[in-house]
Amino acid sequence: MNDKKLITPRKLSGFMELPPYKQVVFDKMIDKIKKVYQSAAFMPLDTPVLEYSEILMAKSGGAIDKEVYAFKKGDTDICMRYDLTVPLARYVAMNANEIAFPFKRYQIGKVYRGEKAQKGRFREFIQCDADIVGLDELPIVADAECLAIVDKVFKALELKILNHISNRNILFGYCEALGYKDKTQDILTILDKINKIGKENAATELISLDVTEEDCEKLINLTLKSGKFADILDEIKNLTDNETYQKGVQELSEVYKYMSALGVDESCYILDIGIIRGQNYYTGTVFEAMMPEHPEFLTVCGGGRYDNLAGYYTDKKMPGVGLSIGLTRLFDLLDQAGMLPEYKLTNIDLQIIPMGDTLCECLKLQKFFSSFLVCDVNYENRSFKSKMKEANRKQLPFILIVGENEIKSELYALKDMNSGEQWSLSKEDCLKMVSSNKIILNTTI
Amino acid sequence: MNDKKLITPRKLSGFMELPPYKQVVFDKMIDKIKKVYQSAAFMPLDTPVLEYSEILMAKSGGAIDKEVYAFKKGDTDICMRYDLTVPLARYVAMNANEIAFPFKRYQIGKVYRGEKAQKGRFREFIQCDADIVGLDELPIVADAECLAIVDKVFKALELKILNHISNRNILFGYCEALGYKDKTQDILTILDKINKIGKENAATELISLDVTEEDCEKLINLTLKSGKFADILDEIKNLTDNETYQKGVQELSEVYKYMSALGVDESCYILDIGIIRGQNYYTGTVFEAMMPEHPEFLTVCGGGRYDNLAGYYTDKKMPGVGLSIGLTRLFDLLDQAGMLPEYKLTNIDLQIIPMGDTLCECLKLQKFFSSFLVCDVNYENRSFKSKMKEANRKQLPFILIVGENEIKSELYALKDMNSGEQWSLSKEDCLKMVSSNKIILNTTI
Repeated sequence: MNDKKLITPRKLSGFMELPPYKQVVFDKMIDKIKKVYQSAAFMPLDTPVLEYSEILMAKSGGAIDKEVYAFKKGDTDICMRYDLTVPLARYVAMNANEIAFPFKRYQIGKVYRGEKAQKGRFREFIQCDADIVGLDELPIVADAECLAIVDKVFKALELKILNHISNRNILFGYCEALGYKDKTQDILTILDKINKIGKENAATELISLDVTEEDCEKLINLTLKSGKFADILDEIKNLTDNETYQKGVQELSEVYKYMSALGVDESCYILDIGIIRGQNYYTGTVFEAMMPEHPEFLTVCGGGRYDNLAGYYTDKKMPGVGLSIGLTRLFDLLDQAGMLPEYKLTNIDLQIIPMGDTLCECLKLQKFFSSFLVCDVNYENRSFKSKMKEANRKQLPFILIVGENEIKSELYALKDMNSGEQWSLSKEDCLKMVSSNKIILNTTI
Repeated sequence: MNDKKLITPRKLSGFMELPPYKQVVFDKMIDKIKKVYQSAAFMPLDTPVLEYSEILMAKSGGAIDKEVYAFKKGDTDICMRYDLTVPLARYVAMNANEIAFPFKRYQIGKVYRGEKAQKGRFREFIQCDADIVGLDELPIVADAECLAIVDKVFKALELKILNHISNRNILFGYCEALGYKDKTQDILTILDKINKIGKENAATELISLDVTEEDCEKLINLTLKSGKFADILDEIKNLTDNETYQKGVQELSEVYKYMSALGVDESCYILDIGIIRGQNYYTGTVFEAMMPEHPEFLTVCGGGRYDNLAGYYTDKKMPGVGLSIGLTRLFDLLDQAGMLPEYKLTNIDLQIIPMGDTLCECLKLQKFFSSFLVCDVNYENRSFKSKMKEANRKQLPFILIVGENEIKSELYALKDMNSGEQWSLSKEDCLKMVSSNKIILNTTI
């Protein structure tokens, strides 16, 4: 091996790799999200990371988006999934006969986007999705159910959010009512960036699409409506009797009614007509949750309704509604902002340090403690001093020093590394001491 | 959408995709394994699925094995990881200065091998690895620690195993002692397949390597030694005083001593000199756990010691020892053999069925129950009869029928779907009834 030229160890840029003590925190967040999804009666699905390109790229007729990781294996064109929604669509279309609808599934997994690496953008990231898919129809109460889950998830994560909710039929219908049906997509693209480019620039762009000045103002005013659900709904409900528009009003009223019944706190969501969401597939409810104390985080959870999820793969009509959390990005933002919960460098409750020839006895003690605690033995061939230094650096709460005298007397030297106190105790009393400390401080990861 | 040609939904062959009710069981197995790793003071690591080809293919000098998924993105040669050991080596080499050694990490994640698809072989599978990496040295007690974890993991999974343990120095040293040092690799390759090809064929192959008939017999006899640790160790310990051989004997004695101290039940492991393990990187302890009642499952967990884990990436010497469980394959074997624990089609404890215009009241009840149970509302626009049929098909334990009379009286119709019994109860009493059933039957997934 020594003759070989060494290869500098490095990882691809844009890929998160946490040190284990932070990974523990990340995994805890996943567990919390999973628990909320499960308690709302969602079941897990784990689709492959790789899919036929033809399937994943159905939308673009097989053309590979440049941000997608695509390759050939033998004669097969393969892509790495870039979201969890398209694989869900493939799954429900493929298994429609076995699935009991409405199908409530969650999936927490890695997705891949070979975007330009830049701060806060990841090429591999974990998405936490929950979706409800119906067959033929799916009542609007499902949308409210997803919105209630958004609320519960962030409460479980102890993060304060404000969920901005809208319905695409409002702006669809309004464009139609003003006589711009054919230009709807272009108009929405402009309205979607009002906050970025400002009202004036948005107006200029709209006018260049041959929207009249008067309609410009109307469209911008409507887009900027945002506030308490009941108030805004009241303000906008009679703006036009366009059918699509009124469908939006009706759906928003229902969502509001069901969210109230589900007990979602009104301080956690607003009606915000400016929520458009770029992607084309949403057809009704849309939402983006933000953190009011950290607007710079932008959207931390988003989702909405799509009336025909699996239309590329089946004639069956499958409406769906869902939410998605980009956990890798959220974790990174929280980490950068110093907002992660306090973490420990190790999950060890008690470390046993053998002195002299006591290793076997220490292993027996480890077996005793391990039924109750996370306990390990420091069996390294290093000095006691260096082991103590390491124990301090690792922030170990307790160490147990076991020499030959301790074995004989069956009284062991237990040291509290925070207070510096030390006792000579039976193993049962050591266990009591460490356990009670663990409960009080909740120190175990 | 309707004008488009439909694309037949399909997934790549060799990729496992479980229905959600089986995924629940799979996820539970992961949780159990994770818990054992954590309680043994291992911390989680999550390396990227993608790595530079140069890094992953260091062993072959960058040449891409044909079973590896490799591709170019821009100018970068990228591979999908085919195991979790090489990424671990890259990680410890890259972060050696921040890591506290011995470094105990577990990683549970997907790995990729584009092998020919065949029954029981997967191209994407989940490995559950735990490794201990030292700096400069790592005492043999670490090997015993890993072996004790193998025992604990399978106890947690309620699967009976027998762990076949050996040490590569035994056969290395014996080949050397007999004067075949240069032919060691070739000899081991032949000995590794004795069980497949039989003693006679193995002998023929050995003789064609110019091994004498007498030595042939000696090598085969040693390889076939297998049984209680103390007995076999006693039988083989004086076969030769070759230094490497005696190192093997010494290490095996230590492993045995420490496993005993750690309380590993002797009925769960044997010393089996025939355990060689194909891969080249093991340098001492090697083991393969099998299920005695299902020898056809072959190895369900394997591992061993490697003296220089990260030698391609760093001059630092990093000995390691670890274990690996191929969970996707194991799950598939258990599933095929009908050995999975009984699973339920849903995780729902209680489903509320609204009758008439009671949906909002049902959602309020759902909120009440959801703090204690998995409860959902069947809000579909279907007949009561079809909902009951569906409840039976899904094996829901309880349903709550809520019509306008129930709302008025605050007494709800709770139906036990197993017994067919039905009661009229307050929501608190409904909760008690469903909760006690849940505890007795432990029905919640």
